[in-house]
Amino acid sequence: MSGGYGHSFALMRAQAEGPWQDYTRHGFVEGLKDGSLPREAFLHYLRQDYVFLTHFSRAWALAVVKSETHAEMLAAVGTVNALVAEEMQLHIGICEAEGISQDALFATAERAENLAYTRFVLEAGYSGDLLDLLAALAPCVMGYGEIGTRLAAEATSDTYADWINTYAGADYQEACAAVGVLMDTALTRRLGVEFTTSPRWARLCQTFRTATELEVGFWQMGLTP
Amino acid sequence: MSGGYGHSFALMRAQAEGPWQDYTRHGFVEGLKDGSLPREAFLHYLRQDYVFLTHFSRAWALAVVKSETHAEMLAAVGTVNALVAEEMQLHIGICEAEGISQDALFATAERAENLAYTRFVLEAGYSGDLLDLLAALAPCVMGYGEIGTRLAAEATSDTYADWINTYAGADYQEACAAVGVLMDTALTRRLGVEFTTSPRWARLCQTFRTATELEVGFWQMGLTP
Amino acid sequence: MSGGYGHSFALMRAQAEGPWQDYTRHGFVEGLKDGSLPREAFLHYLRQDYVFLTHFSRAWALAVVKSETHAEMLAAVGTVNALVAEEMQLHIGICEAEGISQDALFATAERAENLAYTRFVLEAGYSGDLLDLLAALAPCVMGYGEIGTRLAAEATSDTYADWINTYAGADYQEACAAVGVLMDTALTRRLGVEFTTSPRWARLCQTFRTATELEVGFWQMGLTP
Amino acid sequence: MSGGYGHSFALMRAQAEGPWQDYTRHGFVEGLKDGSLPREAFLHYLRQDYVFLTHFSRAWALAVVKSETHAEMLAAVGTVNALVAEEMQLHIGICEAEGISQDALFATAERAENLAYTRFVLEAGYSGDLLDLLAALAPCVMGYGEIGTRLAAEATSDTYADWINTYAGADYQEACAAVGVLMDTALTRRLGVEFTTSPRWARLCQTFRTATELEVGFWQMGLTP
Repeated sequence: MSGGYGHSFALMRAQAEGPWQDYTRHGFVEGLKDGSLPREAFLHYLRQDYVFLTHFSRAWALAVVKSETHAEMLAAVGTVNALVAEEMQLHIGICEAEGISQDALFATAERAENLAYTRFVLEAGYSGDLLDLLAALAPCVMGYGEIGTRLAAEATSDTYADWINTYAGADYQEACAAVGVLMDTALTRRLGVEFTTSPRWARLCQTFRTATELEVGFWQMGLTP
Repeated sequence: MSGGYGHSFALMRAQAEGPWQDYTRHGFVEGLKDGSLPREAFLHYLRQDYVFLTHFSRAWALAVVKSETHAEMLAAVGTVNALVAEEMQLHIGICEAEGISQDALFATAERAENLAYTRFVLEAGYSGDLLDLLAALAPCVMGYGEIGTRLAAEATSDTYADWINTYAGADYQEACAAVGVLMDTALTRRLGVEFTTSPRWARLCQTFRTATELEVGFWQMGLTP
Repeated sequence: MSGGYGHSFALMRAQAEGPWQDYTRHGFVEGLKDGSLPREAFLHYLRQDYVFLTHFSRAWALAVVKSETHAEMLAAVGTVNALVAEEMQLHIGICEAEGISQDALFATAERAENLAYTRFVLEAGYSGDLLDLLAALAPCVMGYGEIGTRLAAEATSDTYADWINTYAGADYQEACAAVGVLMDTALTRRLGVEFTTSPRWARLCQTFRTATELEVGFWQMGLTP
Repeated sequence: MSGGYGHSFALMRAQAEGPWQDYTRHGFVEGLKDGSLPREAFLHYLRQDYVFLTHFSRAWALAVVKSETHAEMLAAVGTVNALVAEEMQLHIGICEAEGISQDALFATAERAENLAYTRFVLEAGYSGDLLDLLAALAPCVMGYGEIGTRLAAEATSDTYADWINTYAGADYQEACAAVGVLMDTALTRRLGVEFTTSPRWARLCQTFRTATELEVGFWQMGLTP
């Protein structure tokens, strides 16, 4: 299913199989699929996700800073744009339609599960190189792509169709594919074609796994407004 | 009680009164005082705290990087030394005496509540200046100083006397006082004598408060091995 | 002349009057004005400037990472885009038209005067907050805007009209104005309306001055292919 | 000659043979050897070197932040200590004996050749991982060790014997050996035993070479008070 997101992602995902299932098939996700997720939980999640996207965008901007080639820079800049200029605006729009003002949205108090995740990603990027950062960024990007694709096929309710279609849509899927290419080329550039034989590979897989576990915590937080 | 830790610390602590009480009078702390804390919880805490100290030492090293004067550098270097060369060795010693080998200690799996705290501190330091970093570092340093002093006076059991005496002792109390001086001088240097009138003050207090809340989460984690 | 670039820029510029004149009226600039600049020097400069822009774009991406509000992020993202997706492509185009291939351009050996400047800017941003970074970024952005405007009015030769028109043009001038607004609002947010009374002001002006001096060194390097 | 400073250093040094000779046999160094270096140049160099050491110590503190093991942290902390608590104090002492007060020393205006070097090192560390940082730090540490050893054997004048003996002395030579061990183990941990076959090796050698060239610029600056 995730073959379209590149070689290294598929390998990292396989190494984190347990947490990956917990994340992509979490109760929150199943509630989006059959429409049983309470509206209150969804809006609580959206508000937290707005705060999340603020820091996640900063982390993608850090990927530009940590780039070594013009191609790496272009790929990372494209993602920052999509996040800051589009996805965050989308959240503002949905929230306003639900009666949550921009001021209220911006004033959302950050939950500990949210904070833990974004600070982990940013710190991985600051302390390491582009590879450490990408390993921490990938689970969110690709996981949502995988969830969107599956729910577009399996959803039994229209309640959260807008959300599902955003992540199942061509634009988002192309962004996932581009990040997959970036990961593969960045790994090859730094560790060689046989990057899984590098001593760093196990630590990069661990970073990917930890970020996946933090995604599970984020969904769990979403269920408890 | 905390007058000895400087002016700015006393002000920040007062702004975070609720979480500060939750932190310094947590059930874990009371269990250290009366000896009712299960040994298993204490050793679990010690192992997590070793992982914590690794990242906390890195954060203090970042304070050296972010220093603007020789005096700031000397103060931060002193703390890094105390942490890396002494406090971490102490944990290694206690754990070995309890039959936990260095290898086992180093292999401790980091809990989410632990990770959340240290990555928050490090990211605050990387993204901000020395003031942002010190506001995130202070609750751990001074909180343990305050807990140690109180428990040395109030403890009704000798079970955790070694732990209590470490933080109540002159060396640790002097370290707290030195950090208090560093905070006061760093704030004055950057924001002026009337630093509480700066727009940054409220955000620095928020950083201090969040770090305090993450301390509460750390104790809570300590109770659930 | 620079009133359109905001209040804080005008103040910083005035504090660095000597170096600012050396920079904006350098022999290299006068050679662009009257067409006397040797083509070899111009192409040498363009190639070095491409390397410069790579790191300068990374520094603007760091401004996104260091942002505290959505408005700050949007302003910085806009500049990163303009640099990575447009200005760097422009250099690639001009160089190709002159027979310098992309491969040759990318392989340009970085001169010491070039390296000194971009690493100074990036380090100011990494070690400080957004204000330190903006003070280091401003001289390049606004200086080129000021040079472009003056040369569009005073040029006595068409030889370097394309270069002049790029920086005199509405797009570039609007970018300068936007950076001016970003500086004013970022300073006010962090240091208050009376930001020049903050102890940090003198150090920010020193950072601006040093970056201006490094611009002088860059032009001088441009004259010695 | 440099066999005692480890395997990776010897390889990097060999790759930068030309600049390494320019650095370690610079006219400034020969002037220290035969006593012909003007006192004014030496004191000018010492004052610039004090500013250099401030930022170089910050860079070594960054190596603590970027460490992944307790052994890496201990090695880096040891170097920070030696620099901040000892070598910088030594400069203060020598300068005071020459009638240069601490205030005058701290107020030394940083020369461009000085700034270029330290910001290059710090930025390499911030943007990369511990390996990038160590490759930038090594030429200064080991080059002075090599110069000290050679001059202790070849000096024909006592004029600069104190300076020579500091770097030829056992303490400094042991510090060089420790940094050599740190480099070898950090490279092996991240890139494997065959670290020279990694795609990163060439870029690390380039970083080492650039830092060596910046050392040449620093000596040159020393000759022009």
